[in-house]
Amino acid sequence: MSADIGSSSGAALKPKLTMILFSGELDKAIACFTLATTAAAGGFDVTIFFTFWGLNVIKKKCFAVSDSQNIFQKAFNYMSTSRLPLSNLNFLGLGPLMMKILMKKTGAASLEDLIKTARELNVKFIACTTSCGVMGLGKNHLSDDVDEFAGAATYLAEAKDASINLFI
Amino acid sequence: MSADIGSSSGAALKPKLTMILFSGELDKAIACFTLATTAAAGGFDVTIFFTFWGLNVIKKKCFAVSDSQNIFQKAFNYMSTSRLPLSNLNFLGLGPLMMKILMKKTGAASLEDLIKTARELNVKFIACTTSCGVMGLGKNHLSDDVDEFAGAATYLAEAKDASINLFI
Amino acid sequence: MSADIGSSSGAALKPKLTMILFSGELDKAIACFTLATTAAAGGFDVTIFFTFWGLNVIKKKCFAVSDSQNIFQKAFNYMSTSRLPLSNLNFLGLGPLMMKILMKKTGAASLEDLIKTARELNVKFIACTTSCGVMGLGKNHLSDDVDEFAGAATYLAEAKDASINLFI
Repeated sequence: MSADIGSSSGAALKPKLTMILFSGELDKAIACFTLATTAAAGGFDVTIFFTFWGLNVIKKKCFAVSDSQNIFQKAFNYMSTSRLPLSNLNFLGLGPLMMKILMKKTGAASLEDLIKTARELNVKFIACTTSCGVMGLGKNHLSDDVDEFAGAATYLAEAKDASINLFI
Repeated sequence: MSADIGSSSGAALKPKLTMILFSGELDKAIACFTLATTAAAGGFDVTIFFTFWGLNVIKKKCFAVSDSQNIFQKAFNYMSTSRLPLSNLNFLGLGPLMMKILMKKTGAASLEDLIKTARELNVKFIACTTSCGVMGLGKNHLSDDVDEFAGAATYLAEAKDASINLFI
Repeated sequence: MSADIGSSSGAALKPKLTMILFSGELDKAIACFTLATTAAAGGFDVTIFFTFWGLNVIKKKCFAVSDSQNIFQKAFNYMSTSRLPLSNLNFLGLGPLMMKILMKKTGAASLEDLIKTARELNVKFIACTTSCGVMGLGKNHLSDDVDEFAGAATYLAEAKDASINLFI
């Protein structure tokens, strides 16, 4: 038994980062994916759990309001499929444009690039089934990058043994 | 001594989730309580520390602006005792109504139900004394669900050995 | 080998708190620094990683829009060097003033006091290099309290072995 304890104590835990992406803003999504890609490149296991407005980040670009949605779901999705806003100084949509131009000029990776890199580095994408249900979102509305549709229990199981857990 | 090490190493830690609920928005409160109830049902110890606008979630429904409050405290409390807004697409109060109707239609639990379930599952509610002091809130203004009034030191003691800590 | 296990298992880990301060609002900054000072006073190692709008909290008071910045950087910085807003009930700037008066009246420490105390208690301030690059911020724009300019990899190394990690 002491051998078992020894081997389990001696084994280095693989560092793991989980993030709940609740917000649908450009700046918060950039923060989330900058952490995700840096961590994954550094050997971390990384899982992002997309819920509520965070689902906007992984909606299909060509997302057309679906006939299977009721009028409230259409309203929420119609509004939120427009470009992601900033959490601050949005300037009626000018802010995100300015931010994107600044990022390009200063050589910072765009959100699209960060998402692509995250996928290449095996960052796990989980879409929250409860939020999808409320918003009337199915697999056909979301990016093919989604690995799994699951609820809070799956998130908790992922986060329980992670060294870093964040809610964004 | 090796026996001690063996027994302490061998003992499985009970999983624990703590959340600081800083925000007073309906959608964030739903996310917080969905995690709380799912975790508690799955055997986690769960503590929610309500601070700043998060205190709005546990204010008494029949909360009347109190004579013991000064004019600024009355203003903050008058504004915030109205229905909880959404963090996004609030539509001047129409958003939360649409969200509630959608949740009912799709069979998702309401915030009221989630709070009730959380209490039944022994989720611990701590109200931040510093915020209460600034906002002029006493025990009589808050729900009887509150287990304890305490400050940041109590939060840190709870969070220090928790497997998952989130700021919402 | 059992001696090694014994010594490593027996050693009490020093509690550690890291926070990413992403938001630039007065109320969130107060929450962040209340946790930071309480934790540091209680023997925690504390690191705050300032990114995006969180950098506004540590900008120099006498910050003049710099000639080295392009027009978009000037716009973002011009807007954000004014007084920090509230995340809720900002009332076009009246909210933060009311909050400050309330905090003074009720004996709560001001943000300026909390920042000063945090420094005295050796809370570590890291400014995010990527955000600084995008916003055109250099060392001369930020408070001398900043210990280090670094990126996400440094944050992850700090957070990996911390008992509490929060994103604010």
